[in-house]
Amino acid sequence: MASNSSVIRASAPKLENVDELIDSVETFLFDCDGVIWKGDKLIDGVPETLDMLRSKGKRLVFVTNNSTKSRKQYGKKFETLGLSVGEEEIFASSFAAAAYLKSINFPKDKKVYVIGEDGILKELELAGFQYFGGPADGEKKIELKPGFLMEHDENVGAVVVGFDRYFNYYKVQYGTLCIRENPGCLFIATNRDAVTHLTDAQEWAGGGSMVGALCGSTQREPLVVGKPSTFMMDYLANEFGISKSQICMVGDRLDTDILFGQNGGCKTLLVLSGVTTLDMLQSPKNSIQPDFYTNQISDLLPIKAAAV
Amino acid sequence: MASNSSVIRASAPKLENVDELIDSVETFLFDCDGVIWKGDKLIDGVPETLDMLRSKGKRLVFVTNNSTKSRKQYGKKFETLGLSVGEEEIFASSFAAAAYLKSINFPKDKKVYVIGEDGILKELELAGFQYFGGPADGEKKIELKPGFLMEHDENVGAVVVGFDRYFNYYKVQYGTLCIRENPGCLFIATNRDAVTHLTDAQEWAGGGSMVGALCGSTQREPLVVGKPSTFMMDYLANEFGISKSQICMVGDRLDTDILFGQNGGCKTLLVLSGVTTLDMLQSPKNSIQPDFYTNQISDLLPIKAAAV
Repeated sequence: MASNSSVIRASAPKLENVDELIDSVETFLFDCDGVIWKGDKLIDGVPETLDMLRSKGKRLVFVTNNSTKSRKQYGKKFETLGLSVGEEEIFASSFAAAAYLKSINFPKDKKVYVIGEDGILKELELAGFQYFGGPADGEKKIELKPGFLMEHDENVGAVVVGFDRYFNYYKVQYGTLCIRENPGCLFIATNRDAVTHLTDAQEWAGGGSMVGALCGSTQREPLVVGKPSTFMMDYLANEFGISKSQICMVGDRLDTDILFGQNGGCKTLLVLSGVTTLDMLQSPKNSIQPDFYTNQISDLLPIKAAAV
Repeated sequence: MASNSSVIRASAPKLENVDELIDSVETFLFDCDGVIWKGDKLIDGVPETLDMLRSKGKRLVFVTNNSTKSRKQYGKKFETLGLSVGEEEIFASSFAAAAYLKSINFPKDKKVYVIGEDGILKELELAGFQYFGGPADGEKKIELKPGFLMEHDENVGAVVVGFDRYFNYYKVQYGTLCIRENPGCLFIATNRDAVTHLTDAQEWAGGGSMVGALCGSTQREPLVVGKPSTFMMDYLANEFGISKSQICMVGDRLDTDILFGQNGGCKTLLVLSGVTTLDMLQSPKNSIQPDFYTNQISDLLPIKAAAV
């Protein structure tokens, strides 16, 4: 396929020796959309595959850049699809934002200003941080009179920005003031995804647009806690004392999931059950090669069981 | 001042030979805030200076990245301050957006979607283009039901983004759909300023935040028509058949006004009546040197007149 390219790049091999992969891995990190489900439909063989991995003592972690829900709220989606997944197994970027603040011992007497939805607030609450903003600021407007000044809380030590369908100028200005004027104020992004899947009828402008707005007004770059930043992998490795080479990232997107795994020093498995086709993987234009690819995660099941 | 720097960079000289500068220039481009006025206060000697330059047959152009007003609306600010400036002398970035579309013969059967305020709509109207969006979309919300799809007009051939205090997710998604899905759709920014001066009590998040949001969701870079892009200079040079070396850009900001002038191949004069101090200009950290600097534009007046 790459024969007319001057540099022949080896394309990732199909996963053949399943047992060897499973034996070498302590933790499987799964992207959700395109791996576990597609829209609102579970992908074939997922429950059996997860059960099998659990029976072998593997740790399972479900990673999503969706910050609109907390881990608990996100768990309901798994429940609805008949999957039994504990909330401690879900790493949503809303949780990652709170976990990051914990990891740096963000002071409990400082506040977090949130541009985003309910999930971020819920995770900050659980982590014991002071916070405000979010949906409550969705209807706020700026009344411009000559000399008008927007006051802001000088105790805000971090602004967390995620996807926010109630995004407005009030929030942009408030967050900008905190980042620009409060010494040392952190600028944290849950993710910079260009698109998100609010509904499966079309692609929707993602968290990257809210983050881009704040970058434009502050001239600062955020610290990103969701994919493809490696914060979640570092966190897992620290929290559970596992080596990153014993983590396998399983995803359907080359430039987010697989890159995320590689950036973190993990094994990587691409599944073709989502947006990436075999042609795309093997195209000479593609420079991101996972360790292995396979059709879907149920390929991890022993052949007999998969045929049931 | 730069003696402890290993590379001695010559700092710009103070303007001494005023007549030589005036004689060599056909058109003076003035930034407004910090040059003509400060907030709502006219800077000393401005009316006399403009009169003197006009009496010598110089073309005067007032350049502003403010896109919320049309040229006509912006002209009222001059009038209020007692300056008689024609609207054809005002180059607001709202006008620049319409002028750019004219310059590329943007088809009259295509439409322009506007994320921005009234000034852009007014200039598009004057230029005879079809447009929609702007303030009318400020209250629109997205009602999310499963399977919901936002329809968009496939006839939109350009999205113009400027400062918009009624910015919301509806506009982000609408503009993103046009840019991403309409073949050849242009993405035009009036400016990418981090800050704007809605009121003089504080700095406000500028047009850069609206533009940054669209960059984040489209993964595209805009064509910028305001400063520091050289579109306005190119336009002037073409429209009036003048050489850019006969244009002098007068401004108070090094990284916008002076850089803008230099990018366009013009002469540059920094005035210290705005945000830049002599120390900032002469700091070893500053790499942008105008051709000359002076205190304020009334230094262009003959010494006797200035002493009046």
